[in-house]
Amino acid sequence: MSRTIEVTELALRDGHQSLLATRMAMEDMAPACADVDAAGFWSVECWGGATYDSCIRYLNEDPWERLRTFRKLLPNSRLQMLLRGQNLLGYRHYEDGVVERFVEKSAENGMDVFRVFDALNDVRNVRTSLEAVRRTGKHAQGTICYTTSPLHTIERFVDMAEQLKELGCDSICIKDMAALLRPQPAYDLVSGIKERCGDDTQVHVHVHATTGVTMVSLMKAIEAGADVVDTSISSLSLGPGHNPTEALVEMLQGTGYTTRLDKGRLLKIKEHFASVRPRYAEFESKFLGVETEIFDSQIPGGMISNMESQLRQQGAVDRLKEVLAEVPRVRETAGFPPLVTPSSQIVGTQAVFNVLMGRYKAMTGEFADLMLGYYGETIGPRDPAVIELAVQHAKKEAITGRPADLLKPEWDELRRQAGALPGCNDSDEDVLTHAMFPQVAAKFFATRDKGPKNLGSSPTAAVAQPVGGGKPNGGKHPVDRRIDYKVTIGGKQHQVTVEPA
Amino acid sequence: MSRTIEVTELALRDGHQSLLATRMAMEDMAPACADVDAAGFWSVECWGGATYDSCIRYLNEDPWERLRTFRKLLPNSRLQMLLRGQNLLGYRHYEDGVVERFVEKSAENGMDVFRVFDALNDVRNVRTSLEAVRRTGKHAQGTICYTTSPLHTIERFVDMAEQLKELGCDSICIKDMAALLRPQPAYDLVSGIKERCGDDTQVHVHVHATTGVTMVSLMKAIEAGADVVDTSISSLSLGPGHNPTEALVEMLQGTGYTTRLDKGRLLKIKEHFASVRPRYAEFESKFLGVETEIFDSQIPGGMISNMESQLRQQGAVDRLKEVLAEVPRVRETAGFPPLVTPSSQIVGTQAVFNVLMGRYKAMTGEFADLMLGYYGETIGPRDPAVIELAVQHAKKEAITGRPADLLKPEWDELRRQAGALPGCNDSDEDVLTHAMFPQVAAKFFATRDKGPKNLGSSPTAAVAQPVGGGKPNGGKHPVDRRIDYKVTIGGKQHQVTVEPA
Repeated sequence: MSRTIEVTELALRDGHQSLLATRMAMEDMAPACADVDAAGFWSVECWGGATYDSCIRYLNEDPWERLRTFRKLLPNSRLQMLLRGQNLLGYRHYEDGVVERFVEKSAENGMDVFRVFDALNDVRNVRTSLEAVRRTGKHAQGTICYTTSPLHTIERFVDMAEQLKELGCDSICIKDMAALLRPQPAYDLVSGIKERCGDDTQVHVHVHATTGVTMVSLMKAIEAGADVVDTSISSLSLGPGHNPTEALVEMLQGTGYTTRLDKGRLLKIKEHFASVRPRYAEFESKFLGVETEIFDSQIPGGMISNMESQLRQQGAVDRLKEVLAEVPRVRETAGFPPLVTPSSQIVGTQAVFNVLMGRYKAMTGEFADLMLGYYGETIGPRDPAVIELAVQHAKKEAITGRPADLLKPEWDELRRQAGALPGCNDSDEDVLTHAMFPQVAAKFFATRDKGPKNLGSSPTAAVAQPVGGGKPNGGKHPVDRRIDYKVTIGGKQHQVTVEPA
Repeated sequence: MSRTIEVTELALRDGHQSLLATRMAMEDMAPACADVDAAGFWSVECWGGATYDSCIRYLNEDPWERLRTFRKLLPNSRLQMLLRGQNLLGYRHYEDGVVERFVEKSAENGMDVFRVFDALNDVRNVRTSLEAVRRTGKHAQGTICYTTSPLHTIERFVDMAEQLKELGCDSICIKDMAALLRPQPAYDLVSGIKERCGDDTQVHVHVHATTGVTMVSLMKAIEAGADVVDTSISSLSLGPGHNPTEALVEMLQGTGYTTRLDKGRLLKIKEHFASVRPRYAEFESKFLGVETEIFDSQIPGGMISNMESQLRQQGAVDRLKEVLAEVPRVRETAGFPPLVTPSSQIVGTQAVFNVLMGRYKAMTGEFADLMLGYYGETIGPRDPAVIELAVQHAKKEAITGRPADLLKPEWDELRRQAGALPGCNDSDEDVLTHAMFPQVAAKFFATRDKGPKNLGSSPTAAVAQPVGGGKPNGGKHPVDRRIDYKVTIGGKQHQVTVEPA
């Protein structure tokens, strides 16, 4: 008697986000959908912050239309999305009414499974969205962002799983965005969750492949009882992406575990994306090999290239080593947040500032907010001296409550703003697009009627004339690494936009 | 108490052979040697058939000089080589006296560990070389070529391990040249060997990474008691190569196993080869991703590109699918040989012939020899009707004895031939070079005094003027895939050289 391991296919979202800077057009995914739909996956991840952003910033695609198209093309599949809790798909905290509206509209347009995480693992920041998902009757998945630090023990992660379970989550996901989850902790963490939360607690494991060890971690997680694991079809796998789906199937042969995936379908999906991928070569991740230094530095590869680009803009690229050494210090100062959007950008940029201008002489508004609790609670205490500096910089006090509790209802105002934009169709979906990406949304609404642009068909031409005037990023970074900062230097505030050169 | 897992580093031989068509010059390996020597490896693989061939065919390097240089640069390391049993580093069977001479000279020039295999897993073909190694006092490693077929059971492989142990081998290697070794059989095979041959039997595991599952297989092999595993530094890993050394170290952290490798040294080795590798881009393997189809087709990727190139020469590249379907049939007809040099070339070429000219209408001399037992015994019975055809083609009878028993002493004649070649220095080493690669050796001797050519420094120029007039292979295939055939069609013999276009 073998136990069936279920699989979430990532190719349609995180696969091309991690490998091809999220640039794949719907047109290039549609032909694979019939095979994806019939292959036997537990769910198909196909939507998230970066794909939404890329749709309106580069591809002139309506992300809601993309979702409805997936719904049509994958009638037998659970569609899955990644949601940044109270941040939704944007970079700020939204008021609960907006969060609820977003979840409702996503469910209405076809979403089935909501994987909800918070960059700081602050459960208060995922509660509203998880409760909203439960009200729609869809699958609410609570997420633990896996990271390592002196404070991140199996025990603490299991505590968090228990809190998520108490919120009524249908499943728990261990999300290892930086490929830091080694085999033994994978085993211990899954075992720990099953023991504490009950054997019938459905545990999902999401790992990236960057460090070359996580296929083994999946095996160990499965041995410990994991129910569903995430993989990406081989032609969109490895490097900063994920472990290959077909290899998972083969790995389990002869063991006490099996998948119900159809190898013939997988081969067709693989061949499809193998044929499409070269057209996005320009956007391909520069480094597709294995990188284990991250175990010691704690700095994901994408974050390094981002900081490198910031330094280059300042003509200080020779100081990268100092910045890399500064990151763990900044992280400790900030209470050891996991490094994932947006905390990775906030910590990385502050490390750059510290090296270029002296430690905490300049501070981004976001870093001050992080220090003052406006992103939520961190696992460790934050440095009181730097909190004091943050108070001076930001001219506001530290908070300990749930950040969104400070926000006033904003839906009506967002609707009014969106309605004033040329090309906005006044739908709730358009209001949400405006809410999450205000600058980009305006340009997108104005050009939407020209229809989708496929950057893969003719990459050179497409880059020369980016949709909506957006700046192409040279294929080096996922689009969600662009971020606007308010920087306060000596009490004077500056608006700084950080994006790859 | 954790158990120490020892590691063999492959970068200096199989790593660049699998990824860069064996083209790396000694000059580009030397700077890494101090770190390799101090990193804590059990052994450093640095010599074998393809590197020897590439030295004299492309790099104008004396392979014996390369060995002596490694000996000097790696004073604290065990040097390891791969030896094709009775074939030595060539493609034919050599008489025992030549085999013994080769082993003696290799030991004398600095070799410590001899990994000895036979393409058919016929133990009679490795006996002479293993006994010769034992007489030198060096490490004699008996090798099982891992493959899959209805006849290849764990039981049969363990039987072979027992036979190797009885020959007095110092260790047993499981050699998975095509990345077919899944985790469960890895566990079962290592357990089986330990159980049958004794827990103190030193078991080595060599796997390639092609199918994406073998890092897990290494973990399972270790759990089953494997003592030494093979990996390659990350900047020369993955794809048709091997699992990354650094990832092995990280994978084991927190488990009951550990390596004694120095991560600081590994980082330096990685950085060195990361900087060197781009200079060999022209020779880089075309496909660096994961390929799982081989589990079903049994056809290694390199073999496919080889057959593709043969078909292209015949203007019949559209018939590749038929050839791929023919390979398993030919393999069954021949008694299920593992597909490894030279059996992979022999089976592949016959499959091409069968498709182009009708089944066994034409037969290579090598395939006839395989059918008639001149390469040794296969695990399964060979098709009697095709044996009969082979008798007619080759005009000789089938044999059941050890092939080398038919050979007469040949050393004196080889010495006479070599001595007649301009530039030959009359050393035993030169005689051996002539013995193994007669055509290429003559050209090499004539140009040797011009010194090494580094194809990496200036790849374009180097290809335009190949050393010794050798035909550059465009970087698509390891050099050891070139092979000369005697082809008999309707009783008339033709000389056919198959090499990548």
